[in-house]
Amino acid sequence: MKGAAYVGQGRLETVTVDVAPPGPGELQIAVAYCGLCGTDLHIAHGDMDARVRTPLVFGHETSGTVAAVGAGVEGWAVGDPLTVMPLSWDGTCAACLAGHQHICQNLVFVGIDSPGGLQQRWNVPASLAVALPPGLDLRTAALVEPVAVAVHDVRRSELQVGDHAVVLGGGPIGVLIAGVARDAGAHVLMAETDAARRSRIAELGFPVVDPSAIDVPAEVERWTGGVGADVVFEVSGAAAAARSTTALARVRGTIVIVAIHAAAREIDLQRVFWRELRLLGARVYQRSDFDRAVDLLRQGRIPVDALVSHVVALEETAAAMDELAAGRAMKVLVDVAGQVRA
Amino acid sequence: MKGAAYVGQGRLETVTVDVAPPGPGELQIAVAYCGLCGTDLHIAHGDMDARVRTPLVFGHETSGTVAAVGAGVEGWAVGDPLTVMPLSWDGTCAACLAGHQHICQNLVFVGIDSPGGLQQRWNVPASLAVALPPGLDLRTAALVEPVAVAVHDVRRSELQVGDHAVVLGGGPIGVLIAGVARDAGAHVLMAETDAARRSRIAELGFPVVDPSAIDVPAEVERWTGGVGADVVFEVSGAAAAARSTTALARVRGTIVIVAIHAAAREIDLQRVFWRELRLLGARVYQRSDFDRAVDLLRQGRIPVDALVSHVVALEETAAAMDELAAGRAMKVLVDVAGQVRA
Repeated sequence: MKGAAYVGQGRLETVTVDVAPPGPGELQIAVAYCGLCGTDLHIAHGDMDARVRTPLVFGHETSGTVAAVGAGVEGWAVGDPLTVMPLSWDGTCAACLAGHQHICQNLVFVGIDSPGGLQQRWNVPASLAVALPPGLDLRTAALVEPVAVAVHDVRRSELQVGDHAVVLGGGPIGVLIAGVARDAGAHVLMAETDAARRSRIAELGFPVVDPSAIDVPAEVERWTGGVGADVVFEVSGAAAAARSTTALARVRGTIVIVAIHAAAREIDLQRVFWRELRLLGARVYQRSDFDRAVDLLRQGRIPVDALVSHVVALEETAAAMDELAAGRAMKVLVDVAGQVRA
Repeated sequence: MKGAAYVGQGRLETVTVDVAPPGPGELQIAVAYCGLCGTDLHIAHGDMDARVRTPLVFGHETSGTVAAVGAGVEGWAVGDPLTVMPLSWDGTCAACLAGHQHICQNLVFVGIDSPGGLQQRWNVPASLAVALPPGLDLRTAALVEPVAVAVHDVRRSELQVGDHAVVLGGGPIGVLIAGVARDAGAHVLMAETDAARRSRIAELGFPVVDPSAIDVPAEVERWTGGVGADVVFEVSGAAAAARSTTALARVRGTIVIVAIHAAAREIDLQRVFWRELRLLGARVYQRSDFDRAVDLLRQGRIPVDALVSHVVALEETAAAMDELAAGRAMKVLVDVAGQVRA
């Protein structure tokens, strides 16, 4: 069987994967699709060499069917469609004991800290498997993981019906947050510097502005009748965007930090004080976010089709990552099983 | 009658104040004591010249008794002891309509935007008056306003019984926050660079460290058994302290920005994301905070006596402000009525 692996020194390779039977408590998955995301790009560029062990079969946005059932696993049969929630926690740290298992202080992220889904047969603990309902195709189901991120971010913000939400950054996660927020009854305004992404966002029906060309705080002020945004999602990772968040939020408004910021950022704490703002971090998802994401996708309530810019073969993973890095792709799905050739 | 006024160009003067009878809806207060705070220092140094109209009789930490009752005012009689909640809101802006009158978008802060309490007779809208209960002396009652700040900060943090709270900055507000938090059942650790302040804090029974000499994150890690603080109050206004907050808070911990930060500060947003931290602004107080502050002081549950380093005459206000600016004073009370000569 084949896989795509990061082999170190900034290099990806197609590798041959030995297929062992699933161990006790495991399911063997015939992986159908696996999405590529920004974290995978960091791995491929060597930014996470201190964390990953090579060769690493990466990938954590997966869908597939059960290929074999390990000893002691109940409730699953060969052929069942599923996705994987790629988090494994210790259950004993202060975060876990407080009910925040998804930010366990010793979290194992499957596909980063252990082998991921870019392989044709993949053994995973059955506890990580999430069943897919009838009517949710495997290609769409590969988007469950990023949609779960968006659900978590929106839930964390405590967004309410009728709220005005600003999303800074129009990559896949930004667009999914916009979609989940709109579905939850919010008015959504997006800001994105890339013209091609802005076109795609506009086609999805979201008002979108170019923060490099217009005064976003003035625009948000106008858009909200002088009040400011109830919620601001910082998804861009840019210093200027982070700096702008406090100028966008209303009195007692909420700013959610979704993006990974590689360096400390300047934040206007005087404005945080003056308007009693709330700035929250939001990381990955909880099981309920995953369940909600499955539900939203099954009901067709999030426009994920328009997000998928490329579907590529497993052997084309490295080339697709280059497209992503160059900003020429939105969401790339790898057809791991090999039904489709791009 | 006499008053102390900021007359512009960084100068304070003792002035003669004309006493007009209270207008309709007003109370005339015979001011007993008025505390001096950091904001008064900013006014005196000319930092707020763009905001204030001179000559400005400033002062907003007051106690006194009713000297005269204006037309239409009910429930007050001459001689009644009182303090003043020095906020006046428009009642019509988005903040007010959402119930956040204390951060009204057009807030009038009495003593900054209108005449304050450093005068022997002071006419204020009766709606701002807060009755003092028997058993709360007027000198202690001048501390109700800063205690209300501390109550608001602690309430905003959602601190719970048994929590570990770190207070960065050991000036009057930092110590009062520590006192309110300890009274609410929290373990409190303080950090303060000034040795004299550290001595005073230690006498009050709070563990206190010198952030210029020790590694505060390591100390908090040790103090909390590797978990991190539930709540961090940033009261120092220092860039390094603001930068350190994210290293002190536990997973899903809360950081409250109490201090005024004159410039944007570097914040580790990666840590905010990673630990799903919550950073909140907290400004002034709501009426319930004022009522709680009165209660705490009446019951003697907050060690305010130890905070008062100077009691001075009205004519000595300028000299006392110099002591404050030089870091040689903690809380200064001005004996406005003139019973005491320092």
